[in-house]
Amino acid sequence: MEMGNNDRAGLSRPLDVLGNASGKRVIVHLKSKDKVMGVLKAFDSHINLWLDDAEVQSEDSNVKIGTVLVRGDSIVWVSPAK
Amino acid sequence: MEMGNNDRAGLSRPLDVLGNASGKRVIVHLKSKDKVMGVLKAFDSHINLWLDDAEVQSEDSNVKIGTVLVRGDSIVWVSPAK
Amino acid sequence: MEMGNNDRAGLSRPLDVLGNASGKRVIVHLKSKDKVMGVLKAFDSHINLWLDDAEVQSEDSNVKIGTVLVRGDSIVWVSPAK
Amino acid sequence: MEMGNNDRAGLSRPLDVLGNASGKRVIVHLKSKDKVMGVLKAFDSHINLWLDDAEVQSEDSNVKIGTVLVRGDSIVWVSPAK
Amino acid sequence: MEMGNNDRAGLSRPLDVLGNASGKRVIVHLKSKDKVMGVLKAFDSHINLWLDDAEVQSEDSNVKIGTVLVRGDSIVWVSPAK
Amino acid sequence: MEMGNNDRAGLSRPLDVLGNASGKRVIVHLKSKDKVMGVLKAFDSHINLWLDDAEVQSEDSNVKIGTVLVRGDSIVWVSPAK
Amino acid sequence: MEMGNNDRAGLSRPLDVLGNASGKRVIVHLKSKDKVMGVLKAFDSHINLWLDDAEVQSEDSNVKIGTVLVRGDSIVWVSPAK
Repeated sequence: MEMGNNDRAGLSRPLDVLGNASGKRVIVHLKSKDKVMGVLKAFDSHINLWLDDAEVQSEDSNVKIGTVLVRGDSIVWVSPAK
Repeated sequence: MEMGNNDRAGLSRPLDVLGNASGKRVIVHLKSKDKVMGVLKAFDSHINLWLDDAEVQSEDSNVKIGTVLVRGDSIVWVSPAK
Repeated sequence: MEMGNNDRAGLSRPLDVLGNASGKRVIVHLKSKDKVMGVLKAFDSHINLWLDDAEVQSEDSNVKIGTVLVRGDSIVWVSPAK
Repeated sequence: MEMGNNDRAGLSRPLDVLGNASGKRVIVHLKSKDKVMGVLKAFDSHINLWLDDAEVQSEDSNVKIGTVLVRGDSIVWVSPAK
Repeated sequence: MEMGNNDRAGLSRPLDVLGNASGKRVIVHLKSKDKVMGVLKAFDSHINLWLDDAEVQSEDSNVKIGTVLVRGDSIVWVSPAK
Repeated sequence: MEMGNNDRAGLSRPLDVLGNASGKRVIVHLKSKDKVMGVLKAFDSHINLWLDDAEVQSEDSNVKIGTVLVRGDSIVWVSPAK
Repeated sequence: MEMGNNDRAGLSRPLDVLGNASGKRVIVHLKSKDKVMGVLKAFDSHINLWLDDAEVQSEDSNVKIGTVLVRGDSIVWVSPAK
């Protein structure tokens, strides 16, 4: 009951969400409230993300930016696009 | 009286809350004031969280996002759903 | 006069406040201005806290949340309830 | 002229302010603009503080909270009470 | 399925976006909402950037600044100019 | 041209500003916009400062506080008083 | 194509901007939106800066401060003056 490590989850780790989504489209919610959508090419332990074919969606615009490096500490959450 | 380590608590650690909640539904309160609800699949020492079957609840919307990685440093608290 | 270590305080350390409060009710003031009250079950060096039987008090609500993990870097101060 | 270490200050270190104030009343100014006053019982290198007989002074209230752990990264400055 | 490392992405790493863009024009979006455009001369693991022939674009101005060092922790994302 | 270490500056380091100012009056500008003036008694690598004979100047007040420990991460810049 | 280290940039590093500017006038843009201009005397890996003959320019004032230590984490970017 007090073990509390993540063995219970079959040794999966939270960043596996990114491993499983590599090569697929993801939605990234930023602390700035903007969203970045793109194809996940690479990530690291800081959750720095390399996205291809990306676009940035802010309150009043939607801009295609192609390839982008998103700095991990700007990110609130990342979700594979449905 | 001056020991002050957490032996008194039977060697339990705060992240055991997450270990005990693995596979169960949790509520995550973010610094942005949004909430994320989902089934806890995995976590790490930074409190990065992998949630499945998740939805994000903000002041004026409730959006289903499926699988999500929530970055630990965006989180205020996490509680198992009742 | 220039020693300045905390030997003068009999080797007590600030986190002993939490060790002494284990199993007792504490009040946690968050950077968000919300308060969390609950029974302190466990803590670590980051001041991550496991609280049981907890409630969150914000400006206009008071919600019972049961068990909760509060992330240390969201916390301003923690005080044993009187 | 280019030495620039703090040998010139007789090997004193900034946290000696806290060592010298142990057992005495201090005023703690928080990033939130609140102040906490109390008797300094212990501190560590993060400037986490254990205060006894403490009170919190905010713009419109003054609340006695007894013993408190103040998280170092919430603090702007600490001064021994005169 | 649970591997989750970035081998799937052919050992590419997110900062390769910067390696690939060296000597080319990039757009840097800052947390302050300003943008800096310039030719990427060098970068490090903190995403500190050396830009040449740079200009800063804020809401109401566009200023040429020549060479600039942008501190990594001010950056939200970096994208090669199209 | 590409060396870029600070040997060119005769091995001086930025914190030498504080070493050179020890025992002298300094002005400290805080992120909160307040200023603290006092005699620099000691500092460390985090730019935590021990000031004696200090006063805090905010927009609408000027308060003498005597001895003070200013936490380094609250500081924008420090300058010897002229 | 996937190397992505900064060898392509001839082993230059972003902080070389500061090495090259030592002894010259630089403009420092702060997160507070203020600017500091001065002669760069020394810097370190945190981008803490020692400036001589400095002045601080805020929205409504321009104050000469002489020698100053600017804390690295307050800085957005640094550019040699033209």
